[in-house]
Amino acid sequence: MSRSAAPTLVGLLSGPDCPGIVAKISGWIYGRGGNIIHADQHRDHEEEVFFQRLEWSPPVGDSAAEGVAFAEFARSLGMRTVVGRSDERPRVGLMVSKFDHCFHDLILRWKAGELRGDVACVVSNHENLRAEAEHYGLPYEHIPVDGDSASTAEESQLEVFHRHGVSLVVMARYMRILSAGFLEKLGCPVINIHHSFLPAFAGGRPHHQAHARGVKLIGATAHYATEILDDGPIIHQDVTRVTHRHGVADLVRKGRDLEKLVLSQAVAWHLENRILVYGRKTVVFD
Amino acid sequence: MSRSAAPTLVGLLSGPDCPGIVAKISGWIYGRGGNIIHADQHRDHEEEVFFQRLEWSPPVGDSAAEGVAFAEFARSLGMRTVVGRSDERPRVGLMVSKFDHCFHDLILRWKAGELRGDVACVVSNHENLRAEAEHYGLPYEHIPVDGDSASTAEESQLEVFHRHGVSLVVMARYMRILSAGFLEKLGCPVINIHHSFLPAFAGGRPHHQAHARGVKLIGATAHYATEILDDGPIIHQDVTRVTHRHGVADLVRKGRDLEKLVLSQAVAWHLENRILVYGRKTVVFD
Amino acid sequence: MSRSAAPTLVGLLSGPDCPGIVAKISGWIYGRGGNIIHADQHRDHEEEVFFQRLEWSPPVGDSAAEGVAFAEFARSLGMRTVVGRSDERPRVGLMVSKFDHCFHDLILRWKAGELRGDVACVVSNHENLRAEAEHYGLPYEHIPVDGDSASTAEESQLEVFHRHGVSLVVMARYMRILSAGFLEKLGCPVINIHHSFLPAFAGGRPHHQAHARGVKLIGATAHYATEILDDGPIIHQDVTRVTHRHGVADLVRKGRDLEKLVLSQAVAWHLENRILVYGRKTVVFD
Amino acid sequence: MSRSAAPTLVGLLSGPDCPGIVAKISGWIYGRGGNIIHADQHRDHEEEVFFQRLEWSPPVGDSAAEGVAFAEFARSLGMRTVVGRSDERPRVGLMVSKFDHCFHDLILRWKAGELRGDVACVVSNHENLRAEAEHYGLPYEHIPVDGDSASTAEESQLEVFHRHGVSLVVMARYMRILSAGFLEKLGCPVINIHHSFLPAFAGGRPHHQAHARGVKLIGATAHYATEILDDGPIIHQDVTRVTHRHGVADLVRKGRDLEKLVLSQAVAWHLENRILVYGRKTVVFD
Repeated sequence: MSRSAAPTLVGLLSGPDCPGIVAKISGWIYGRGGNIIHADQHRDHEEEVFFQRLEWSPPVGDSAAEGVAFAEFARSLGMRTVVGRSDERPRVGLMVSKFDHCFHDLILRWKAGELRGDVACVVSNHENLRAEAEHYGLPYEHIPVDGDSASTAEESQLEVFHRHGVSLVVMARYMRILSAGFLEKLGCPVINIHHSFLPAFAGGRPHHQAHARGVKLIGATAHYATEILDDGPIIHQDVTRVTHRHGVADLVRKGRDLEKLVLSQAVAWHLENRILVYGRKTVVFD
Repeated sequence: MSRSAAPTLVGLLSGPDCPGIVAKISGWIYGRGGNIIHADQHRDHEEEVFFQRLEWSPPVGDSAAEGVAFAEFARSLGMRTVVGRSDERPRVGLMVSKFDHCFHDLILRWKAGELRGDVACVVSNHENLRAEAEHYGLPYEHIPVDGDSASTAEESQLEVFHRHGVSLVVMARYMRILSAGFLEKLGCPVINIHHSFLPAFAGGRPHHQAHARGVKLIGATAHYATEILDDGPIIHQDVTRVTHRHGVADLVRKGRDLEKLVLSQAVAWHLENRILVYGRKTVVFD
Repeated sequence: MSRSAAPTLVGLLSGPDCPGIVAKISGWIYGRGGNIIHADQHRDHEEEVFFQRLEWSPPVGDSAAEGVAFAEFARSLGMRTVVGRSDERPRVGLMVSKFDHCFHDLILRWKAGELRGDVACVVSNHENLRAEAEHYGLPYEHIPVDGDSASTAEESQLEVFHRHGVSLVVMARYMRILSAGFLEKLGCPVINIHHSFLPAFAGGRPHHQAHARGVKLIGATAHYATEILDDGPIIHQDVTRVTHRHGVADLVRKGRDLEKLVLSQAVAWHLENRILVYGRKTVVFD
Repeated sequence: MSRSAAPTLVGLLSGPDCPGIVAKISGWIYGRGGNIIHADQHRDHEEEVFFQRLEWSPPVGDSAAEGVAFAEFARSLGMRTVVGRSDERPRVGLMVSKFDHCFHDLILRWKAGELRGDVACVVSNHENLRAEAEHYGLPYEHIPVDGDSASTAEESQLEVFHRHGVSLVVMARYMRILSAGFLEKLGCPVINIHHSFLPAFAGGRPHHQAHARGVKLIGATAHYATEILDDGPIIHQDVTRVTHRHGVADLVRKGRDLEKLVLSQAVAWHLENRILVYGRKTVVFD
C-alpha cells in the first residue's frame, strides 16, 4: 500500500451494475488528465449491484473541485458516491468509559502516523481518563450519564462532537447504548467494538456468556453502531484461542488485545475510505 | 508427544478437589512400580473440581488388571475415572450422508496412522459412498431414513453399531438429528461436526445464515451430540477469514477444510483419552 | 467468488506503467462488446511496473479468437500477456514419491470440483501408489531414479508429460531435484511444496532442522520450482504452532496438514490464472 | 489461569529423568503441608531430561524459607531449580532506542496489571523518550553509544541496572548488540525482540530482506539474548500475512503489532516463571 506524496482522490461508488461501467469511469478520469493509482471493484451477483473503490491523481489544479465533478459524473451513472481527498484529515471523536486499552491504543497509533485522520476530542461518562487525555494534548469532556439524564447527556455529547467538527465517532469501549435520535442528529458514522464474535454473545457480559458455553475461541467485532444493540454492519472480526484453563478474568485480558487490533483496523479502514455499507453488510476494500 | 513403545495406561479423573491429591495418585502409581510419563491437571476454582489426565507405564504384568486396580483406587478418592490402554484400539462407527470430505479425511488419517483407533463400519442414509467405503475395505450399511421410518432406522443403526462393537460414533457430516433414545441405547459417545462457530448459527443452513449476517469469519465446531441440536459440549473450534467477495458457495468450499481439520482433531483427542466432559463443557488435555 | 456460467476470458498482464492504462484496456474490452466481471491491479512503485488480472465476458462468438485479439492489443501497449479461457481445462501432471497425503488431497479436491483443471497422470519414482492412482482412474507411470539414471529418468518423465499434454506439473512431495534442462524442455511451470517456512530451513530434513533450532512455529511453502533448490518464487505459505512437547514425528504429522492446504491453494490459484511471476516474487490476485 | 490470593511458590526444575520423580516431588510438598495448585511437566525422551513447573501453596509460615528448603530437596534429586514467590515482584530494566511501540506497550500492560513484575528504569541511547518515560513515572537514563564508547556505555548501563536491582532486562527494540562481557556481568537474563521469523532473516533490516525474497508471511521472534546475534533460545514467535501490495513501510507497520504481542507475551511468561532454558531451546509451560 505504497503511497504517492501528491494529493489523491478516493471515490467509493455503489449502484446498479451495467455493461461498460469500468470503462466509463476509468475513461472519464483519463479524459480529464487523471491517473488511476488503485482500483478495486466488486459485484454482488445476487443483487446485481456494482461496488468500486478508486484512488487517482487528479490533474494539477483544484482537487476539491475535481472531486465534486467526479461525484456528479458518478451520480449520472446512477451511483451513490463518496469522495475523499488525501489532503483532508477527518476529525475523530472518541467515547470512552473506564476501560483504557482501546483509548491508549488508538491515540498511540494516531501519534505514530497510522491513521489518516486526527483525534479531536474525548468524551467520557467518567472522570478517570482526564489526565491521560490531557497528557496526549486532547480536550476531555466528562458528561455523566445516569438513567434520568440520558437524553440530556446525549445533547451535551452532540454539542461537543459538533463543536469539534468530527466526521467519525469511535466508541472505544464506551459501555452505553446510543439512541436512534442521537445517531440521526450526529450525522456521521459511529464505530463500536463488541467484545465477542458477533452474532454469538450479543448484549451484556459476553465473556461470561462465552465462559459458560465453553467455547474454545473468543472474539471481537467492530461494527457500525445502529439503534439496535450489536446488530449493525460488521466491519472486522478476529478471534483467539482459549482453553478450559482460562477463567473469565483471562478471557477479559486476552480479549483486550483482540479489541485493540480489531477496532484500530476498522477505524484505519474507515479513514482510508475503504468501507461501503450495504444493507446490513459491508464491502471492505482492504 | 513422543510415545514409548511399551503398553501404557491413561487415566482420566475428575472429582472434588482435596489437599494432597496429586501426591496420593502419583504415590499410588510409584508404589506399584509404575512410572508416570505425562501428567496434566486442571482445577476449576469456582466449582472446586479437580481434573487429571495421567499416562503411565504400569509394572510388567497384566496391564488390564492394573487399570482396574487404578480405577478402584481413584474411586476410593471420590473420583470419576476412565482408564484406557495403549494396547487397545477402540472401534469407531462413521455416519455419513452425501458429503464425502470428512469421510475421506478421517479414513485417510486412520490409514496414515494418525488415529489411535480403527474405523469399523460406515452407516449412511444414502447409497452414494458405498463404492468408496468398500474400496477402503469398510462394511457399508445403507439405512434409508424418512419421516415415517426414523425410529425403525435408528433401530437398524443401533444394531449395526452394536454388532461392530463400536465405542465411538462420528457424525461425519451426517445431516440428521439423533434422538435421545438412540443416544441412550447406543451407550457410547457421539461426536458431531457443525459447520459454524457455535453458538452462532446453530441449526440449518449455517453458511446461508453467516452470509446473510455479513460475518468476516466462518467457523466449524466439533461437539459431543446431545438430544438438543448443536448444543452439546464443545470439543474444538476453528475459523477462517471470508470477505464480501465470497458467496455462499465459497463459504461451503472454505468450510470443508475447517470441518475436516476440526472434526479429525476432535476424534484424535477423544481416541487418545484427552477429553473430560464436565457439565456442558469439556476439559481437553492436548 | 461467484461465477457466471457463460464462458469468460482471463487476462494476466504486466509491463511498464503508463498513464491511462486502465482506461485503455477497459475501453478496448467495452468497445468490442465485452463486459468486465472482475478486475484487479497492482503497481510496483519502485520498479514502475503495472500488473493486472482481468476477467471478462467476451462478445458472443469465438472466445478463443477474442483472447488472441486481446493478447495482441495488450502487447501493443508493451504488456506481457497470458490469456486463459474458462471453457478450457488445463491438464496437470503429478509427481509423487512415497508420501501420499498431498496426492490424495489434490485428487479428492479435483474430484470435488475445486480445481479448474484436470489431473492427467501420475509419475512416481516408486510403485507404491499405483493401486490408489488407478482406483482414481489415473494413468500411473513408475519411473525409477537412481544416481546413474537421473538423466534417463528425466527423458522418460518429459515423454510422459508431453504425451499427456500437461500445462502444469505439481511436485506433490516428490523428493528429488529437477534439473535446469528438465525445466526448460518441459516448457510449463512446476509447483513444488517445501515443508518449511522458506527461506528458513531450505534443503533436506527441514523438520529436523526446525526441531533442533527450537522454533515455535513450523511452516510450509509452495513455490515455482527453479533449478536452484527451494529458491523459486513463493506462491503461498502458512504456519502452525508447535511446542516443546512436539518431537520430530509430531512436526511431520502436523506439517502434513499445512502441506495439503498450502499446495492445493497454490495449484488452485495457478489454474485460475491468478499468479504473475515477477523476478523472484509473485503477484497473487486472490 | 485463575489465581489464589494467598502467597504461592513456583518451582522450575530440570534434570535427569528417573522413576518416581513426580511422586517424590509431590510427596515432599504434601508431607510438609503444602498443596499443589498447578503442575506441568515434560520429558525429552531423546535426552532423557525431565522438566517440571510446580505452583503450590506452602504451609502457613515463612514462604521464603520453604522455597529454599524445596530447592535443596530438588537438588538432592539432581535437579537444577529456580524457585519464585508470588509475593515477590521482579524488577525489570527496559532498553530502548528510537522506536516507541514496544516501550508504550510494555509499560501500559504493566500499569494494567498484566505483568507479575515492575518496570524499574529505562535506558536509551537516545533522548527522545525521556518525557514519555517520566510521564509514566520512570527514571530515564540516556547513555549514548558510538563506536568508540561502546564499552564505556556498557559500564554505565550495568551500573544503572545494578543500582535499580533488576533481575530481567528487556530490549524493547533496542537496536544494538550486547557484548558477551556485558551479559556475563549483568548476571540476569535479557529478552530481545527480533522483527522476523527467526532463523529466517537474522541480522539487519529483516523487513527489507523479507520484501526482497517475496515471502507471504512476516514474523517476530522473542528470544533470550546471547553474544551471538539473533541466535539465542527462542521463547515465542508469531506471523502475519502480507501480500504483493505491501511495501517495506507496510511490513514495518504490520510488524509493530506482532512485535508488541510477541515481546509482551515472552516477558509475561518469564515473570511468571514459565520458561526453562535448555541448550539452545526453551520449554514454555504456558
